[in-house]
Amino acid sequence: MTEKSQLVTASSYKVWDTIMIGTGPAALSAAIYTTREDIKTLMFERGVIGGLAAITDWIDNYPGFPKGLSGLDLSENLRLQAERFGAVIELGEVSEISRKDGLINLETTSGKFKAKTVLLATGTDYKKIGVPGEKEYFARGVHYCATCDGAFYRDKKLVVVGGGNSALQEAIFLTKFASHIDLLVRGDKFRASDILQKELKKYSDKITVHMNTTTDEIVGEDNMVKYVLGTNTKTKKSTKFITDGVFVFVGLLPNTQFLKDSPIELDKFGFITTDKDLCTSVPGVFAAGDVRSGATMQIASASGEGATAALKIREYLDELAKKDS
Amino acid sequence: MTEKSQLVTASSYKVWDTIMIGTGPAALSAAIYTTREDIKTLMFERGVIGGLAAITDWIDNYPGFPKGLSGLDLSENLRLQAERFGAVIELGEVSEISRKDGLINLETTSGKFKAKTVLLATGTDYKKIGVPGEKEYFARGVHYCATCDGAFYRDKKLVVVGGGNSALQEAIFLTKFASHIDLLVRGDKFRASDILQKELKKYSDKITVHMNTTTDEIVGEDNMVKYVLGTNTKTKKSTKFITDGVFVFVGLLPNTQFLKDSPIELDKFGFITTDKDLCTSVPGVFAAGDVRSGATMQIASASGEGATAALKIREYLDELAKKDS
Repeated sequence: MTEKSQLVTASSYKVWDTIMIGTGPAALSAAIYTTREDIKTLMFERGVIGGLAAITDWIDNYPGFPKGLSGLDLSENLRLQAERFGAVIELGEVSEISRKDGLINLETTSGKFKAKTVLLATGTDYKKIGVPGEKEYFARGVHYCATCDGAFYRDKKLVVVGGGNSALQEAIFLTKFASHIDLLVRGDKFRASDILQKELKKYSDKITVHMNTTTDEIVGEDNMVKYVLGTNTKTKKSTKFITDGVFVFVGLLPNTQFLKDSPIELDKFGFITTDKDLCTSVPGVFAAGDVRSGATMQIASASGEGATAALKIREYLDELAKKDS
Repeated sequence: MTEKSQLVTASSYKVWDTIMIGTGPAALSAAIYTTREDIKTLMFERGVIGGLAAITDWIDNYPGFPKGLSGLDLSENLRLQAERFGAVIELGEVSEISRKDGLINLETTSGKFKAKTVLLATGTDYKKIGVPGEKEYFARGVHYCATCDGAFYRDKKLVVVGGGNSALQEAIFLTKFASHIDLLVRGDKFRASDILQKELKKYSDKITVHMNTTTDEIVGEDNMVKYVLGTNTKTKKSTKFITDGVFVFVGLLPNTQFLKDSPIELDKFGFITTDKDLCTSVPGVFAAGDVRSGATMQIASASGEGATAALKIREYLDELAKKDS
């Protein structure tokens, strides 16, 4: 109930009550609950605190903010709230996870750690298209986050790849900056909501849609992207799309690579399967948020799952304490 | 995406896309999602907009508010956000729900309504102890919400009934006002978290705990509560607790009385059972929040479930539209 002074560090405890992997809305919401109940909580983050939410431009549908707020502000609020009650955040990457003698062992870039429970809340990452030039020009002309990098393309030409919700939403967002956008859609229809498709039509002066068009190669010169080669799969015609940059929005990949050799069960897409108590196939290891199989990919749902996971972690710790006494 | 003008009323549509019963965090969060995607949404509320959250004094663990906020403010934020995108709230009570020809029919105090989908998010209500005097002095000495009525007992004596989390939490809260509190606990131990039990000890000057003590009768005179009769189940000794008021915190009852004669399946405690998509036993009827079997009784979880339910409602409506076309 009381606020904690921040004297606790990652090395303060030999065995943590819980270690959370990730610091997105699911993990931070869980940490607000666990730390408030004096459950010793350590969090690992290998990238940006706040996860994908932190690099989302504007959030209108997180319940409680009638005017909306920036993803950065929401993430900062969540971090402050978790830290207020005593959450410790360690910047580092977890490479291995295993269970022995009832404890969970973690191998990390900050050393070895032990915990009674673990919450996997590593979220998802942007999917790549895997064409020549994509890797070469990564972050120097090829991007996956409009909020992060859109502003570099003020009054410039862009190619956007994708036909789903995020592709349409981000293409519309990028019209703030770009003078013109070629939107390359592989299929013959969008996989986006009706409202977004309607919205897209309002931007027809700035966004030219190319259906049935594959993205074949990203070509540059002098360290700068110059054009994208695409092929119309109906006419077999190849087109050169002159551009200053490429934004790729073709989906999300679960951040579960580090679990490949662990006993934690994943679904066929690599997301973590859980039971109704958010417990994974390994006792004491829970999962919440976008990385969980069946996740809605919504911040509100991730936060709610975080809170639920925290209560399940408490129940598990209570059972453990009973056994020990 | 755009804000709606409030010209729509409960009678605007012959068939609503979705009708939500309740306006707590689960329903309002769901409505933020549905209305933002142009799903025509009507909400029914028979009591206070915001549900139990609205009458909660202070909320420290709703993710996104590092300093906490009052339950009233959170509820108001949620209402504004849902109304911003076009949610319509009708003050009225639903008495019957049935399904015919693929539509859900509702009997309400505002007349008959039809909807393609329904979200049941009626939450829970305070459980009564069922002793003489409880009904008679309801709201005139017998209360169930410390936030609502605690301030009436400044410098007065109180009896608090219950031994769970809410009883301890609210008894502590009531020390702000009351000069002394007798806490009557039926069992021989608390059913509350360790942290709350520890916290309670700090208030031993103001709160006297009576374990193994049943509450037998609430006795008054001239329309005012005068004392509570209790019995120690070990010693069989009866005690008269002189008091100005009684606060009862013995649990929550799901608001599902109106579903008794409906085909919607309830668990043995009266909570609504759902599948993993939050769908009840009746197609098109969903449930979210505290009223759902297995709910965590946390606002964050309720909000998250509301968001998830909204996505499931959209999927259901999309399927319906495909069948119709």
